[in-house]
Amino acid sequence: MRSDDPADVTDRSAELLEVLRERSPLVQNITNAVATNFTANVLLAIGASPAMVDIPTEAEEFARIASGVLINLGTPHEEARAAMPATAQAARASDTPWVLDPVAVGALPVRTTLARELVALRPTIVRGNASEILSLAGFGEGGRGVESTDSPEGALDAALSLAREHGAVVAVSGPTDVITDGRQVMRVSNGHPLLTKVTGAGCALGAVMAAFASLESDALVAAIAATSVYTIAAELAAEKSSGPGSFAAAFVDELARIDADTVRARMAVA
Amino acid sequence: MRSDDPADVTDRSAELLEVLRERSPLVQNITNAVATNFTANVLLAIGASPAMVDIPTEAEEFARIASGVLINLGTPHEEARAAMPATAQAARASDTPWVLDPVAVGALPVRTTLARELVALRPTIVRGNASEILSLAGFGEGGRGVESTDSPEGALDAALSLAREHGAVVAVSGPTDVITDGRQVMRVSNGHPLLTKVTGAGCALGAVMAAFASLESDALVAAIAATSVYTIAAELAAEKSSGPGSFAAAFVDELARIDADTVRARMAVA
Amino acid sequence: MRSDDPADVTDRSAELLEVLRERSPLVQNITNAVATNFTANVLLAIGASPAMVDIPTEAEEFARIASGVLINLGTPHEEARAAMPATAQAARASDTPWVLDPVAVGALPVRTTLARELVALRPTIVRGNASEILSLAGFGEGGRGVESTDSPEGALDAALSLAREHGAVVAVSGPTDVITDGRQVMRVSNGHPLLTKVTGAGCALGAVMAAFASLESDALVAAIAATSVYTIAAELAAEKSSGPGSFAAAFVDELARIDADTVRARMAVA
Repeated sequence: MRSDDPADVTDRSAELLEVLRERSPLVQNITNAVATNFTANVLLAIGASPAMVDIPTEAEEFARIASGVLINLGTPHEEARAAMPATAQAARASDTPWVLDPVAVGALPVRTTLARELVALRPTIVRGNASEILSLAGFGEGGRGVESTDSPEGALDAALSLAREHGAVVAVSGPTDVITDGRQVMRVSNGHPLLTKVTGAGCALGAVMAAFASLESDALVAAIAATSVYTIAAELAAEKSSGPGSFAAAFVDELARIDADTVRARMAVA
Repeated sequence: MRSDDPADVTDRSAELLEVLRERSPLVQNITNAVATNFTANVLLAIGASPAMVDIPTEAEEFARIASGVLINLGTPHEEARAAMPATAQAARASDTPWVLDPVAVGALPVRTTLARELVALRPTIVRGNASEILSLAGFGEGGRGVESTDSPEGALDAALSLAREHGAVVAVSGPTDVITDGRQVMRVSNGHPLLTKVTGAGCALGAVMAAFASLESDALVAAIAATSVYTIAAELAAEKSSGPGSFAAAFVDELARIDADTVRARMAVA
Repeated sequence: MRSDDPADVTDRSAELLEVLRERSPLVQNITNAVATNFTANVLLAIGASPAMVDIPTEAEEFARIASGVLINLGTPHEEARAAMPATAQAARASDTPWVLDPVAVGALPVRTTLARELVALRPTIVRGNASEILSLAGFGEGGRGVESTDSPEGALDAALSLAREHGAVVAVSGPTDVITDGRQVMRVSNGHPLLTKVTGAGCALGAVMAAFASLESDALVAAIAATSVYTIAAELAAEKSSGPGSFAAAFVDELARIDADTVRARMAVA
């Protein structure tokens, strides 16, 4: 497989979905209060096994047995702040892939300091919106709270810089997701605007990336596969929805139903 | 516009819904663990931008840039308790309208002390059920946990007293919502009993009030507009629901769909 | 009524559902961040009144007025850890039935210590999966995080031992739920696999057990009734679902709709 060949990446993404369903990777989440329930339901739907283990001593111990780890800064409460660096170090030490989602970095002080500390611990994947990636790379001031005020293409140089400095894959979410390992730049154009109307949808994608990264050592391919499966499910759900409430339920249904053939047929990576 | 003229208030409420969709006010929430996900989805659906920023230093800083702030006492954990007074003061100092929801005040000691401290910081709007308003005004003992054991009309004197003492608009929720600025008393009769079967529905209304209060300097009108749009969406959702689970999803759909004409046609304010 | 006679237990379960709807027991929950919203909606749907009161001083005080209490170890944050033993003692001292759900006990250190402390405070019902019950009884090492790697029948000896040592009813969840008071062993075969795809579904069942235990002094019967009503609603919801997302909403609808005749007709206890 060549990770810069869209056809190869599409085939591998479809294959990884089947592998995920067989292995049911155990994904540990230190995530925010808003997204925790939705994230667990998304992981269950796609076929992974969620564990929300986020307090000191438990979190770092669990990172050694988890298949993958998500660390999300959405609502960084005291015990989670204390658990995050130790968990990242334990994940790295035990070769557990881990994903950093630096929610609202730059816009808010506590998480900005914490995000800079965590990114130095070499996450496998950094997932964020354009404003967050710009800020984490030191290129900008951050968006309006959790909102991005920049476009993924506008954050490409920041993503490349971040990827090269920390040896991470960087995934910038937007209408077209831009994903890079610091050398190759790939774009995924699947998705639907309703996904932006479901709180925690981006946060839960970070957990799905951790699941795929536990199955595929090329983190660029893992991030592309996770993004594609997730956003194709959003397209399918939108066809069956009357608004963001019915969409959220239909999206979870589609994550449970989507198969490899559907991924091959609909995946729009370039 | 005369805020005691139901026709004027109806027209203004319909207009404010359109303004909200244009401006997408940024609503900061320090809210409870039960309601945080639903509150964010409700704000996204109606067209606002939610931010759950609830830890010390971040919360008070964010209150200066937020369009409106909700402080809800449902599950007042340590860092939230610490952040609430500073956030209320920062909101007041920067003319950011803020809403206090004194959940279960009177029934439980920690939040009762905190609610009395917060109401003295002059919230723009106080939103609660009859038992909570009676208790916060010193007229009663509070309800059974989060439940009201009193009627909105029975809490009218307490609401008037609270409004006059603290210069706040007070909104008492119930089958008919009673809303006063201490001089005028207005009533909104829209709604549906299924809304009381969705946990956090009252809490999320407080966040919607913060969104409307950021667009309308007359907080009485803002509270009436928020209550009307919210409870009309509940009426529309109930027509499409088989129970509280499907209602919750349909309600979010209707919040995203409701338009100014529907508000004008259905709003029942007197 | 003989609690070892399936016909008697079925009739009593149907009757208890009607009593629950009349009395709307007040169920206090110290539960995890993932399940708190779903648990409150489940309690509202079935006809109980939820209260998420989980901080020190408030929690133990509330346990004296609550009808029943759930203590769930899913995400045991600092204030909840501090509140749990005092709340269990207050519940016991005031004859408030309480349910212990030792989530992931054995697999993780903080909650394992806490679970052993709590079970010694004589819960009315202990609810868990097979791995959790094996671990709490000292028969095993615990499962893979929140997942059970054992079968309910394989945990029967552990359940009997735990029940006899602590005077509790022990309910082991699985495709067939095994429930014992240390003398009789009863099995409930209702349910649907989709229930295992909704995060917090087991946690919310613990809260429903607390509601039934507040209405029926025979905790074995209360646990069987709660399990049966809950799992029959899952069967009904599965008939109307396209996947785990639509199932979760339909399940809440069915909990609100299920009646005594449906329980009598479908309950599969032996």
